[in-house]
Amino acid sequence: MPHFLSTTDPDFETRFAALLTMKREDSPDVDEAVAKIITDVRTRGDAAVLELTARFDRMQLTADKLRFSDAEIDALCAEVSDEEREALELAAQRIRAYHVRQMPLDQMWTDPDGATLGWRWTPVSAAGLYVPGGLASYPSSVLMNAIPAKVAGVERLAITVPTPDGVANPLVLLAARIAGVDEIYRVGGAQAIAALAYGTETIAPVDKITGPGNAFVAAAKRRVFGKVGIDMIAGPSEILVIADKHNDPDWIAVDLMSQAEHDESAQSILITDDAAFGAAVAQAVEKRLETLERRKIAGKSWEDFGVVITVRDLGEAAMLSDRFAPEHLELCVEDPDGLSEKIHHAGAIFLGAWTPEAIGDYVGGPNHVLPTARSARFSSGLSVLDFLKRTTLAKMSPEALKAIGPAAERLAKSESLEAHGLSVRARLDRLNADD
Amino acid sequence: MPHFLSTTDPDFETRFAALLTMKREDSPDVDEAVAKIITDVRTRGDAAVLELTARFDRMQLTADKLRFSDAEIDALCAEVSDEEREALELAAQRIRAYHVRQMPLDQMWTDPDGATLGWRWTPVSAAGLYVPGGLASYPSSVLMNAIPAKVAGVERLAITVPTPDGVANPLVLLAARIAGVDEIYRVGGAQAIAALAYGTETIAPVDKITGPGNAFVAAAKRRVFGKVGIDMIAGPSEILVIADKHNDPDWIAVDLMSQAEHDESAQSILITDDAAFGAAVAQAVEKRLETLERRKIAGKSWEDFGVVITVRDLGEAAMLSDRFAPEHLELCVEDPDGLSEKIHHAGAIFLGAWTPEAIGDYVGGPNHVLPTARSARFSSGLSVLDFLKRTTLAKMSPEALKAIGPAAERLAKSESLEAHGLSVRARLDRLNADD
Repeated sequence: MPHFLSTTDPDFETRFAALLTMKREDSPDVDEAVAKIITDVRTRGDAAVLELTARFDRMQLTADKLRFSDAEIDALCAEVSDEEREALELAAQRIRAYHVRQMPLDQMWTDPDGATLGWRWTPVSAAGLYVPGGLASYPSSVLMNAIPAKVAGVERLAITVPTPDGVANPLVLLAARIAGVDEIYRVGGAQAIAALAYGTETIAPVDKITGPGNAFVAAAKRRVFGKVGIDMIAGPSEILVIADKHNDPDWIAVDLMSQAEHDESAQSILITDDAAFGAAVAQAVEKRLETLERRKIAGKSWEDFGVVITVRDLGEAAMLSDRFAPEHLELCVEDPDGLSEKIHHAGAIFLGAWTPEAIGDYVGGPNHVLPTARSARFSSGLSVLDFLKRTTLAKMSPEALKAIGPAAERLAKSESLEAHGLSVRARLDRLNADD
Repeated sequence: MPHFLSTTDPDFETRFAALLTMKREDSPDVDEAVAKIITDVRTRGDAAVLELTARFDRMQLTADKLRFSDAEIDALCAEVSDEEREALELAAQRIRAYHVRQMPLDQMWTDPDGATLGWRWTPVSAAGLYVPGGLASYPSSVLMNAIPAKVAGVERLAITVPTPDGVANPLVLLAARIAGVDEIYRVGGAQAIAALAYGTETIAPVDKITGPGNAFVAAAKRRVFGKVGIDMIAGPSEILVIADKHNDPDWIAVDLMSQAEHDESAQSILITDDAAFGAAVAQAVEKRLETLERRKIAGKSWEDFGVVITVRDLGEAAMLSDRFAPEHLELCVEDPDGLSEKIHHAGAIFLGAWTPEAIGDYVGGPNHVLPTARSARFSSGLSVLDFLKRTTLAKMSPEALKAIGPAAERLAKSESLEAHGLSVRARLDRLNADD
């Protein structure tokens, strides 16, 4: 049974607030182990990476085997069916078309004082993408991380993916090839993150690391942050569906289950203005849970973290949704665009009943790497901006310096930074002497 | 004596690589103390904040005195001279004009498949800005942090600033007022960061915290990251000047000193294609150091971390600069725009000899909060984007779902995520039944 709430309940606010702060994930404390692994890779390079790979992935490698050769990639890609290849290619093409539009423009202008100002965007030189092994080895995530990097203009894009017992996922390799990845290494865990951040004899260091991973990978990313840039540390997935009674309860039920099946810690929330519809969806969920392949995972997530909230009207639904700031938000209502205008905090919005969230996971075009755990209040999904940085530009004409230099000198004095003021004064004195 | 290098030295690469990895700052390990302070503020709210303020800032306050009243702000602002007020207002106006241009555009389009896609930017609802007390209490930093937040549309902007022994900096209060700050609290240290992140009875929580601070503040920001967004953790300041022999050595010397005077850990680097000019600048630095108010700090920074590199040509200078990825880069050469095109990694570029870096600290317009310690390889200075987040939008027409849904279903199957596929299939079945 999920949590049932109604905004007309006298204890609604208390129960809702408790839901907002509910802890869904207990990360094991692996920080000490990870610190040791990072030091080991920094100190001993390839040798450490090879030992750790032998220990964790049961693979006896030599340094020259760390990187997948072109022939190996060719052979694995050939295992993929035509149908899967075409689906990946369609997804890649749509993701690329969306992200190309995100490329920001450089600007440069001269203001009335004679100061020429602006900025310029440049890509990071090298990026590393972590891809989990085993069950969570998702080719769609390879596309979602790698394509924005390549659209941004990253010259060197390396992937690390563990291959426990030597088993590689052909779809991951094919996705990497389609996305234009330059190097693929069979390394996983904290040792992969350390190698990407600090480099080894075989793996050159990168400037930015993105991609999901387990507790070891997350702890390693936190530790190397500063030495390199990292993306967000993602928590378990969430979906919030706002649906009125004009929906098919089964469609909404299966949408809720599409998050719940990810992980027992995932959260699926329905907000509706019709209590009977809410009950019908809950019933449809139970029905789907009878046959779903991942019913154990999805059922546990729904029982522990599932929520059905009945509201007085859709305006109330938007307000509550903003307090969740959900990763994924489906608006299955008559006027989804109008309701969307009332939403301020959400990673991605799916407008209307013909847009199940799963479309966005694969082929919609927008990125599926999105802020979780209410962080959509202050952060955004992955984009080309994550692989770019901005250099600001300023050029003073002598006239501009005359016009605004004295104010800089004045403020430098107020802040007791004499040399700051003198660097302006030396130039102003020359200008005055020249007059 | 600074470090003198020439690219023609046989050991140049070794010495240059050592410079790149030279540690300039030893942060004391205050993490345990900070963890306690944060827990204390989370648990006991105002009471903890008041006790910690009494202990660290020697101020006996009551909760109703934590926030500066309008009358107190009025009285402090009235202490500021007209000259200083005008300088602050000019700076604010120019910073605002620059940052307004950074506002990104929303987009929405419909592609040939019938999928309507796009994104929308929204501001964070509430932001907190930390302002250090004492010597490093810079009104210019208040403008540089607060104005982008207000330009982004942040509704509630709160400042925390310690006032040790009750002493407040009138210029900080005036800068806050000019920038449109909504609330100002006399609290500092880790307790201020904890109050902003978790809220107390008096201080409502925010979604994003920016601003510089000491080791306690930096450790607290790291700890609350995730609960709220934070900006970068800044290290000691750096300047790199590329200058040819046609410059006045004294101008370059004083520019180098304008970073060195910040902090003994600051770094000032000159790269020139003329060894004699490099020697002349070093001599001019010694001369300036005789009289500079902050000569002890600047002298120590120059001696420990100052660098003068002679290169064969300016192309080589650009390549070495990219390896430093400096926070501030001055191009004092005949064709600064041309040389700028060769630079890929820098926080801010100052073009031409009439643009001393100090102009950018105060009145240029671009932000002076910039990436340090080589992080310009992967990150940017503060901007309106730091106070905005992007929600992606997707809306499928039935035709679009027909066109791209099967590929999503196929990939869901490959990833063993059955419910993902079913959420698409339920809709496709309806469409097929309707045909």
